[in-house]
Amino acid sequence: MMDTQLVLTQFLTRAEKYYGHKKIISRTSSTMTHRITYRDFAQRTRKLASALEGVGMKRGTKVGTFAWNHHRHLEAYFAIPCAGAIIHMLNIRLSLEHLRYIINHAEDEIILVDEELAPLLASIQHQLTTVKTFVVMGDHVDIAATKLQNAQSYEELLAAADSSYEFPTDLDENMNAGMCYTSATTGFPKGVFYTHRGIVLHSLSLGLVESFGLNERDIALSVVPMFHASAWGLPFAAVNFGSTQVLPGPNMTPQIILDVMEAEKVTVTAGVPTIWFGVLQLLENSTRPIDLSSIRILVSGGASSPKGLIQAFEQKYNIPFTVGYGLTETSPLVTLSRYKSEMDDWSEEQRLEARSMIGMPAALLQTKLLNEEGEVPWDGKTMGELLVKGPWIADAYYKDERTVEAFKDGWLHTGDIAIQTPEGFIKLVDRTKDLIKSGGEWISSVDLENALMTHDAVAEAAVIAMPHPTWQERPLACVVLKNKEVNSDDIKEQLLQYLAQNFAKWWVPDEIVFIDEVPKTSVGKFQKNQLRNQLEELLQ
Amino acid sequence: MMDTQLVLTQFLTRAEKYYGHKKIISRTSSTMTHRITYRDFAQRTRKLASALEGVGMKRGTKVGTFAWNHHRHLEAYFAIPCAGAIIHMLNIRLSLEHLRYIINHAEDEIILVDEELAPLLASIQHQLTTVKTFVVMGDHVDIAATKLQNAQSYEELLAAADSSYEFPTDLDENMNAGMCYTSATTGFPKGVFYTHRGIVLHSLSLGLVESFGLNERDIALSVVPMFHASAWGLPFAAVNFGSTQVLPGPNMTPQIILDVMEAEKVTVTAGVPTIWFGVLQLLENSTRPIDLSSIRILVSGGASSPKGLIQAFEQKYNIPFTVGYGLTETSPLVTLSRYKSEMDDWSEEQRLEARSMIGMPAALLQTKLLNEEGEVPWDGKTMGELLVKGPWIADAYYKDERTVEAFKDGWLHTGDIAIQTPEGFIKLVDRTKDLIKSGGEWISSVDLENALMTHDAVAEAAVIAMPHPTWQERPLACVVLKNKEVNSDDIKEQLLQYLAQNFAKWWVPDEIVFIDEVPKTSVGKFQKNQLRNQLEELLQ
Repeated sequence: MMDTQLVLTQFLTRAEKYYGHKKIISRTSSTMTHRITYRDFAQRTRKLASALEGVGMKRGTKVGTFAWNHHRHLEAYFAIPCAGAIIHMLNIRLSLEHLRYIINHAEDEIILVDEELAPLLASIQHQLTTVKTFVVMGDHVDIAATKLQNAQSYEELLAAADSSYEFPTDLDENMNAGMCYTSATTGFPKGVFYTHRGIVLHSLSLGLVESFGLNERDIALSVVPMFHASAWGLPFAAVNFGSTQVLPGPNMTPQIILDVMEAEKVTVTAGVPTIWFGVLQLLENSTRPIDLSSIRILVSGGASSPKGLIQAFEQKYNIPFTVGYGLTETSPLVTLSRYKSEMDDWSEEQRLEARSMIGMPAALLQTKLLNEEGEVPWDGKTMGELLVKGPWIADAYYKDERTVEAFKDGWLHTGDIAIQTPEGFIKLVDRTKDLIKSGGEWISSVDLENALMTHDAVAEAAVIAMPHPTWQERPLACVVLKNKEVNSDDIKEQLLQYLAQNFAKWWVPDEIVFIDEVPKTSVGKFQKNQLRNQLEELLQ
Repeated sequence: MMDTQLVLTQFLTRAEKYYGHKKIISRTSSTMTHRITYRDFAQRTRKLASALEGVGMKRGTKVGTFAWNHHRHLEAYFAIPCAGAIIHMLNIRLSLEHLRYIINHAEDEIILVDEELAPLLASIQHQLTTVKTFVVMGDHVDIAATKLQNAQSYEELLAAADSSYEFPTDLDENMNAGMCYTSATTGFPKGVFYTHRGIVLHSLSLGLVESFGLNERDIALSVVPMFHASAWGLPFAAVNFGSTQVLPGPNMTPQIILDVMEAEKVTVTAGVPTIWFGVLQLLENSTRPIDLSSIRILVSGGASSPKGLIQAFEQKYNIPFTVGYGLTETSPLVTLSRYKSEMDDWSEEQRLEARSMIGMPAALLQTKLLNEEGEVPWDGKTMGELLVKGPWIADAYYKDERTVEAFKDGWLHTGDIAIQTPEGFIKLVDRTKDLIKSGGEWISSVDLENALMTHDAVAEAAVIAMPHPTWQERPLACVVLKNKEVNSDDIKEQLLQYLAQNFAKWWVPDEIVFIDEVPKTSVGKFQKNQLRNQLEELLQ
């Protein structure tokens, strides 16, 4: 067979040649929508590569992006790797301390930054030891106002760039194309590389019927930030398949997401449950009918999606709601929960149960659940840590000794505890570190939380371990009430009884505390270590 | 990213683990249908590998198969490459001289042969210089009756084989997994290798929505023989996606194909136009309603599909008919003709025109049309030779100097002449060698043939070049009439007038001759060199 390398350049060429008239719809301010064709996008991408080479980008140079979801960020997604450099997508929600760490640790030399985000970077610019140039993205950039030194305007660079630039044709598919850092429970964020090959294969997998089924007729909305695991790979894949893509710009709110879904007749989208909760509330409170009939698949991942959320979208609004699972380390798609044909004659309840799991691994990936005794059986009850292997799974953290523990024996150890049904569907039951070990047995904090959140009085619930002299650990439920005026003793009793109906006696928490909100990470995941800190006294 | 190799073993593992209960339906005689689960199939495949190693198969050993489409052939499709050996799919329709040549040229050491096909091999066995063992496939094989020396029964070998055998885990994706020979216009057939990587990527591409969209819910019927370009890759891909697969056994006729499509509720199938013509005739002559509503996509390739055929399937029987293009050298999928969204508001006639072209290249492939002046524009009229490049395109003929001409400059030169529309749709207009060069201009024999075949009186038509003192070449039409009793002078006049309405004057053939049939290759393609030989006198 020909030695054809799987590199991103071919995605760009394909979009330009075969889908040149298709559109990228990009929100660059709260009131304006910018539309650009793939043909113009490809031309601008080549100019960007030429311009970046003009300010010092070479093969292997790390070029940071500090930006929301818009067409310029997408241009950077291709211009940097197709020129043989590495795009480092910086998470704008990190603390300044972590931000400084990852830019210096990755040795970024150039950073492309949104005009409105420039002040954040400006405040730490003197601590950035490797950055030589900032390129400021925006419609009408005022460079002086950014306070950045050595900064240039993206659009001015493009205007002056060589329009005859051609991307190199000798890239190797195993070259690094991108990188992201992922937050750790303790310590600094950990960086992973994405190769051209990994991104190409991951993108292809999104086009499979059994996956997102992404294709030319789709209108794909990237709700996940492009600085978070490449917006789950949707922007890359949409270019390859020539899908219309919608990039919703800065400060996405559920209202903006909902508006753009309706206005642009979005067919496929993916985001975290927090966003979908927000969208659901807007739908339920809307005084006018909202037409979302264009949506073919809505993917929810990054945190557990309660059954009530799935049911509301599917039954009330007829929007196919699909749960998925992935990590920054996994590009990110690992699993999706799509019904297998054998589930067709299951009861509605069984199907909902399956739908609320994370499903089965994508083609080309392997997963297994491992506990102290080895690989666990597919019995729907034995818990084990989820391990993943495959061509778009990272094999190391960049210059980081935490690699040793996470990437043992050729598998990524996710730290997520799961069970697997006889059909091969995986259900996450906890994080390794959040699992409650009571009297030698495991109790799933997530199962308890999900049960609590189905109770009418409960807005959110997090369950954490409380040290115990006899049982080592016992569960403590931290509950956010919908109505904070109710009598908390009454409701506490009600909730404990409610749990007792559904769980073995020893699973029922010893105590319930009421809190104002559950602390969350930048992507909406419960931050249980922060919750533990807040409740430190109780847990002594 | 992890260094995970793209090898066929993972397809087998996936089918066994996630789709173990799904079925392979295999016709092993004209009256019986054998059903086997993927779980049993995987177990038998491991045993087959063990058994073949027992009779001398090592890494890199070429193991021939001489067989129809059935579950044992599918077992060989995986057992041989997953063990690190190479499956050589022998075309049972080759002349004995060519068969002897390719077995010796490939240096096959073992041949798996259908019991009913054994006599063919027995007749040349003493000329086979490298074959040490035959393994005879069948339900109840009588080895002695096969007349093969050193022959063993497939089922007996399996019964005695090691059921604890495990496939090696250290295969490299660039290892050869399979090989096929393709007939040449002159000389012996030419052999190409398929690597694990090539087959895996080709299989994935069949799962894309824009391609076959193959998935777990499909019931995939391989009409193309498994000895012909791996049945267009459908058997490999169906294992990966866990699709039910139907293998229609020996001596497939249109009647068998139609019966099995209806009985098994087939959803996806692919074959040559000759088969679909036959199926269409049966549909039109049937005295009872035939239910083919399960069919989601029917692919036709290997030769040009006339518009009338497409129209009849789509409009009369509501069966989506999709034209594709590929070669033995290309695994084989190169292009498919699926409507792009920009064609949605085209007229029915324009859409049919697009539908009758071969469409656009699959993701990961590149094509271009080349003539003496370079790459031709997408203007829908300039002709050029179709060149193909990509990860599942062969890069050489095995030990064959014809490699030099066919694989120039990193591209496969297909020898097919085509035009490309502004939308990127490719239309084949001729073979390089069949193109008529008249007065320095090119005339497409295929365009003339297609036009002739839309005339009511014409069953088939082939147009070839006739030497001419002034114009170098002029077209000669060779026509098979539906009704051979008609006055041929009248009809000749009618046909010439008919063509004159649709073509420039200098395209209209100088002469029409009436023949009994157009000679065809084993896969139903017109054999114009044979036609030229038959008409030698006229062409002097």
